[in-house]
Amino acid sequence: MRTAERNHDVSSGDAATAARLAALLAAFRPGDDALGVSELARRTGLPKTSVHRLSQHLTEHGLLEHDGTALRLGLKLFEIGQLAVRQRGLVDTARPLLADLREATHNTVHLAVLEGVEVVYLDVLRGPDAPRLPSRIGGRFPAHATGVGKAILAFSPDGVVDEVLSGGLPRISRRTITSPALLRRQLAKIRDEGTAYEREESSIGTVCVASPILDAAGHAVAAISVAGSVNRIRTERLAPAVRTTALALSRTLR
Amino acid sequence: MRTAERNHDVSSGDAATAARLAALLAAFRPGDDALGVSELARRTGLPKTSVHRLSQHLTEHGLLEHDGTALRLGLKLFEIGQLAVRQRGLVDTARPLLADLREATHNTVHLAVLEGVEVVYLDVLRGPDAPRLPSRIGGRFPAHATGVGKAILAFSPDGVVDEVLSGGLPRISRRTITSPALLRRQLAKIRDEGTAYEREESSIGTVCVASPILDAAGHAVAAISVAGSVNRIRTERLAPAVRTTALALSRTLR
Repeated sequence: MRTAERNHDVSSGDAATAARLAALLAAFRPGDDALGVSELARRTGLPKTSVHRLSQHLTEHGLLEHDGTALRLGLKLFEIGQLAVRQRGLVDTARPLLADLREATHNTVHLAVLEGVEVVYLDVLRGPDAPRLPSRIGGRFPAHATGVGKAILAFSPDGVVDEVLSGGLPRISRRTITSPALLRRQLAKIRDEGTAYEREESSIGTVCVASPILDAAGHAVAAISVAGSVNRIRTERLAPAVRTTALALSRTLR
Repeated sequence: MRTAERNHDVSSGDAATAARLAALLAAFRPGDDALGVSELARRTGLPKTSVHRLSQHLTEHGLLEHDGTALRLGLKLFEIGQLAVRQRGLVDTARPLLADLREATHNTVHLAVLEGVEVVYLDVLRGPDAPRLPSRIGGRFPAHATGVGKAILAFSPDGVVDEVLSGGLPRISRRTITSPALLRRQLAKIRDEGTAYEREESSIGTVCVASPILDAAGHAVAAISVAGSVNRIRTERLAPAVRTTALALSRTLR
């Protein structure tokens, strides 16, 4: 943006426009429906005239849609977004197995991958007995505070774990593991057992049991979990079902 | 693009850049993983230098990712794409009911909405007994050739049906309904029965039974279906399960 204001040559203008377009798309949050131009300007820090003009362009290409005078993300982004899951085969292969796991446990089943220091949920199947959890498809969560995150980290190269530790292990709930030494010990145990537990570390009242999806080299490409209310599920009892499903999925993918 | 070449003022440059960025994102197709700059240039009609520069910008903002020298869609697009489903509540509410329907029928369950003359699949749960179908989450299909499309059209305002008919009813398989009069008659029947059948109209060998999700005014907001191999499923026998699930979902959403 700074560059664009100093210099109108095509390539630096491109960079500024790309930054503004990306900011507009990233301005939407879960639960938002349509946002007005003023709100988008406030969230992106862009002038209202820019928001107005750029949103017109995005609307032309289906990336935004008009809703009266407000704007919302275009369904075309959903279509493109589905193609962005490079583990599309993973999601498709996992789906029936996850549905079985949900059916067998009546709780909420997750499939997630690691992106930097966070997990991204590729699939969430809510169970009839599960409490409302913060996880949602496409949502992110700090890896160290989740069962799926710890399951993946336990079967990841050292550099990956180091990156997470260097992020400082932010406290998400009062039970989040914030000590690097403690996290490393727990990862070693998970590596031994093939199963990761999360005990109210992401949100008080919720527990989960997770297991990694491993490639032929034994590295985690993803993890699955079953999560539920601390008062209603026994994670140790669900562990064999989660582990079995993860092993079956790992085998199927190879 | 034409404008940008004639005129370098900021706003028309914006339009050109937005068009190019949208073209780059739309260049990816199902089954693509990473694409090289040359391939992207070929698909978008942009010069390789532009593709190279713009893809750098998109990569900075997480909308594309590097894979060696090639490029793929960024996982951030998956996250944004999930927020683009304005019927997020519909998808979340439908999920357990669709899982039950898959469990009960062992075939593939769909949830779709209408976008212009096409349906977009918001959810696909593949059943263990189902053949490989062309449907995929985020995928599109001509509405008139699908059970979900016909179920939605039967409960849509006349203008919506007229738009589909004016599109010319392209033949997708040799069983696709291509006669406007025949389609109108079938929609009237679907309106009476609350259930739509599709008999190898989208692909030979596959049949399906669908039912609309209706709002309080009785208009379709979506539809669900169960699809399977023509030799293995009896759509008439599955119809009550599909219809019951659609009614339950319609009621829950109101």
